[in-house]
Amino acid sequence: MTQNTSDILGVNEIINICVAKGMAHVVISPGSRNAPLTISFARDTRIETPVIVDERSAGYFALGIAQQTGKPVGLVCTSGTALLNYAPAIAEAFYQRLPLVVISADRPQEWIGQDDSQAIDQVNVLQNFVKASYHLPIAYKGTDDLWSINRIMNEALSKSISGRMGPVHINVPFREPLYGEKVNEYKSERIINKLLSKDALSNEAKEILSQEWQASKKILILAGLLPKNEKLNVCLSQLAKYKQVVVLTESISNLQDQAFLPCIDRVITSFSDDEIPNFQPDLLINFGGPLVSKKIKSFLRDHTYKKHWFIGKEDTFIDTFQTLSSHIDLSPDHFFEDLIAHLNETESVYAEVWKARDQACDLVHDTYLQKTEWSDLKVFESILKVIPEGGNLQLANSSVVRYAQLFKMNQNLLCNSNRGTSGIDGCTSTAVGASHVNNKITTLITGDISFFYDSNGLWNRYLNNRLKLVLINNGGGGIFRFIPGPSDAPELEEYFETTQEYRADKLAETYGLDYFYADSMETLDQTLSDFYKADERAGILELKTPRELNDVVLKDYFKNLREI
Amino acid sequence: MTQNTSDILGVNEIINICVAKGMAHVVISPGSRNAPLTISFARDTRIETPVIVDERSAGYFALGIAQQTGKPVGLVCTSGTALLNYAPAIAEAFYQRLPLVVISADRPQEWIGQDDSQAIDQVNVLQNFVKASYHLPIAYKGTDDLWSINRIMNEALSKSISGRMGPVHINVPFREPLYGEKVNEYKSERIINKLLSKDALSNEAKEILSQEWQASKKILILAGLLPKNEKLNVCLSQLAKYKQVVVLTESISNLQDQAFLPCIDRVITSFSDDEIPNFQPDLLINFGGPLVSKKIKSFLRDHTYKKHWFIGKEDTFIDTFQTLSSHIDLSPDHFFEDLIAHLNETESVYAEVWKARDQACDLVHDTYLQKTEWSDLKVFESILKVIPEGGNLQLANSSVVRYAQLFKMNQNLLCNSNRGTSGIDGCTSTAVGASHVNNKITTLITGDISFFYDSNGLWNRYLNNRLKLVLINNGGGGIFRFIPGPSDAPELEEYFETTQEYRADKLAETYGLDYFYADSMETLDQTLSDFYKADERAGILELKTPRELNDVVLKDYFKNLREI
Repeated sequence: MTQNTSDILGVNEIINICVAKGMAHVVISPGSRNAPLTISFARDTRIETPVIVDERSAGYFALGIAQQTGKPVGLVCTSGTALLNYAPAIAEAFYQRLPLVVISADRPQEWIGQDDSQAIDQVNVLQNFVKASYHLPIAYKGTDDLWSINRIMNEALSKSISGRMGPVHINVPFREPLYGEKVNEYKSERIINKLLSKDALSNEAKEILSQEWQASKKILILAGLLPKNEKLNVCLSQLAKYKQVVVLTESISNLQDQAFLPCIDRVITSFSDDEIPNFQPDLLINFGGPLVSKKIKSFLRDHTYKKHWFIGKEDTFIDTFQTLSSHIDLSPDHFFEDLIAHLNETESVYAEVWKARDQACDLVHDTYLQKTEWSDLKVFESILKVIPEGGNLQLANSSVVRYAQLFKMNQNLLCNSNRGTSGIDGCTSTAVGASHVNNKITTLITGDISFFYDSNGLWNRYLNNRLKLVLINNGGGGIFRFIPGPSDAPELEEYFETTQEYRADKLAETYGLDYFYADSMETLDQTLSDFYKADERAGILELKTPRELNDVVLKDYFKNLREI
Repeated sequence: MTQNTSDILGVNEIINICVAKGMAHVVISPGSRNAPLTISFARDTRIETPVIVDERSAGYFALGIAQQTGKPVGLVCTSGTALLNYAPAIAEAFYQRLPLVVISADRPQEWIGQDDSQAIDQVNVLQNFVKASYHLPIAYKGTDDLWSINRIMNEALSKSISGRMGPVHINVPFREPLYGEKVNEYKSERIINKLLSKDALSNEAKEILSQEWQASKKILILAGLLPKNEKLNVCLSQLAKYKQVVVLTESISNLQDQAFLPCIDRVITSFSDDEIPNFQPDLLINFGGPLVSKKIKSFLRDHTYKKHWFIGKEDTFIDTFQTLSSHIDLSPDHFFEDLIAHLNETESVYAEVWKARDQACDLVHDTYLQKTEWSDLKVFESILKVIPEGGNLQLANSSVVRYAQLFKMNQNLLCNSNRGTSGIDGCTSTAVGASHVNNKITTLITGDISFFYDSNGLWNRYLNNRLKLVLINNGGGGIFRFIPGPSDAPELEEYFETTQEYRADKLAETYGLDYFYADSMETLDQTLSDFYKADERAGILELKTPRELNDVVLKDYFKNLREI
């Protein structure tokens, strides 16, 4: 295959190594300095190249793709503040363990700080949130530069997808002229493979861990943020049958089994102080990224137990509950597959105690929801019921993802939320990026603050007819009305909740989405099926809930649980 | 005066030192971790505290305030990606030399990297673009911590406003509880004054420089980006009368005199190769921040001259034209006031040559504009004529600011543009921030890409009836159609220009602005006066210009100039 690409030495190394290392999507933001990359990526038929103008949105769009594919996703921008707009998404990718590959064009190094246009100090600007930062040589001087570009690109891409996955930053200075072309034969550049040691326990470790397991009558397995993982799911399903084992999952753990307990906050709320020892584990096993539930964190931090294993490929000790006794440096699926033959059932009432309580909570939940009027909480019940099987559910920060965890959801949903940093800044862009590649009905549930914050997520050509945005508009940051400190402060409305009366109908019109609206149970029931039936283009369903009532309903819900 | 403020030790030190060092505005973005700062700043009657949810927009809004006031402006945000969203505005402030003071709330250091919510590694994240980064101690342990907070706050604020002004970052970790209050007596915290040496030339330097001046028959004085400066203006007006002196200004130099030449690109375009030596200086004197004009840069880089002085408080040698011979480390107004008695007139035709050419260009310009049809260029003529006396003109990147410089503008306008980094990302937010404090009619001229990029600039409560947004909607990034490389590439429309058909009418409705529209000279003439007369709320005037004709008109304009 031959094709005209940039005539700048090194650009084809960059592109070919990206492809060889599994990159299939490169999100490009327009600019002039990055023209050599733009031209060459855009013409390469092996790579899809969406164009997103706002780099902040582009970053989260790429993150949505990486979330769905698990493969490295490229981000290409011009020099200047363009690159800085990636920072929020890169931080999210770092803590969510997603392989974003930032390839930023730069001016030649000697022109930085000389008051030339769009020439800022780009070196290492993302260093707190990438696995590595690289600065490529300007490849005009021949073979040593080309060798260095080849080695760095190989290393950077391998780094992004091995061990704890995460973003990398490659800064690429270009000298003018930028638009030259030459016929390129896509020759095979040198690929350096990274071959890893077997991800398996030593016999000694197996011995120690199975002894600790056997010694435990109360084993709590707790999953955090995870991509879907069938092997892991199978292992945990088997363990969840044991009498001494409780498996707690979050909606974003993407683990499904009737025996798992997915509504952590509900159950923990119901514990009275004297019951707590019954629920405490002897052995805590956790894995996955950050947890949504604050209650599980304080429950586990307040108590001491004999052993705590954290399982995951990590460079540091992650000691979320201040109780870690073993960091098991394996991926959780390999770990459980490897050890499961050594993990036996023991006589215990531990699982039964948790499950009985969970069922009692189900009853309180259902009874309460039946009598609950139009509110944020009630709205979730209706929406979660109708989300189509096999879809993708994207949950925005910060109230939305917490509300959703109060419900037992359809087992067959892929569920994502930006819980790496828990920012509100890119929820829509992430959902749009996810929906661009996942071929599923993608439902984003978002609040009004996160929706307006990231309205640029709609400013692109990649809104498809499988994308459904549910906007719960409660006129501000409802979470501040719920948590005790700010709700009592005179600054509540202006400085915390930021009360607002904006609506999304005109934004929908601007960006070409269908628009639906409901402000009561009756109107919602009518609208909801129309909303999911509409299949010409993307749609927004805006739900106006009562700002000053939502927190009352939710507080009362938790009060009912505490009375179990 | 007594008032309840945060009960966290150290918070009042922060606030009182900010006030003592001249801070009058603190832009707050809502969050929980920053509650101690929010409560205390919001209740302090000495400080105005606008609330902007989107931190990217908040950063540029603060920058707009700093641009107008020249005083330090605070930015307060919560922990997590919030802080990262400031980065583009901070980079702009750094290269534009504006004193933004970022005060970011953080989690306690020991919780970073432990997969806790909104806990990211915030230390030094802005280091490439601030004069200094500080990390405050958590002030629970008493006097040494308080002493350190006091010293750091004094140093940080002084640093932002001395020498080359610029942003600083103070990262402030807080431990819960965050919402406690206590009665505070605004006692006087210790203030450390920074006293500077006199900003004046030594006798030896005076001697050398006046000799170099006297030896020069052709002196070119070139002003870059500057705040309005009456003293400097007076000095330059006097020098501009001299026969050997030419003063070139940019629209964002904010220097006005009939004797200055403000349309650099126009004049330089008219030079034929053999004429160039007539326009070359012996002595180049420049000052101010980055220049808009690319033509002046290549004109000055292509030629050698005897001496080149750069005047400005800078820590490094800024050698924009690769010809610097003296860096004069003084502010330009002090420099000229100090030296002007030693700078005499010399017999020369240099000024006359430039002025004659400038007049010839005026003629070509006027003739061409008279016969020009509806286009970006033509639109500028109409708008610049009607902008009210004494107003503020905000010019967006990137085509807009270049178009504007082709016109001789009203002498009595304050003119701003984000030319520190030349980014398109915050032009609207900057204008809104400027208009919030400047009490003038503020006209922002912006293109469609920059307008939609920063549509969140409209998502706040600070749009006032003095704010006029002129949106030149040419359906994409018109500059890419003008510059030679991308205009020939098949990727032009999709990857560079990013052709789009979005309109602003519905955004105006969403965010509560009056909306006007024109797509011909006739409709513009009718609309323009209505637009400026409307005084109930902020307004947008959208002008639809012909995407595929604008570059033809502009190229033809320059062709006419080259034929002089």
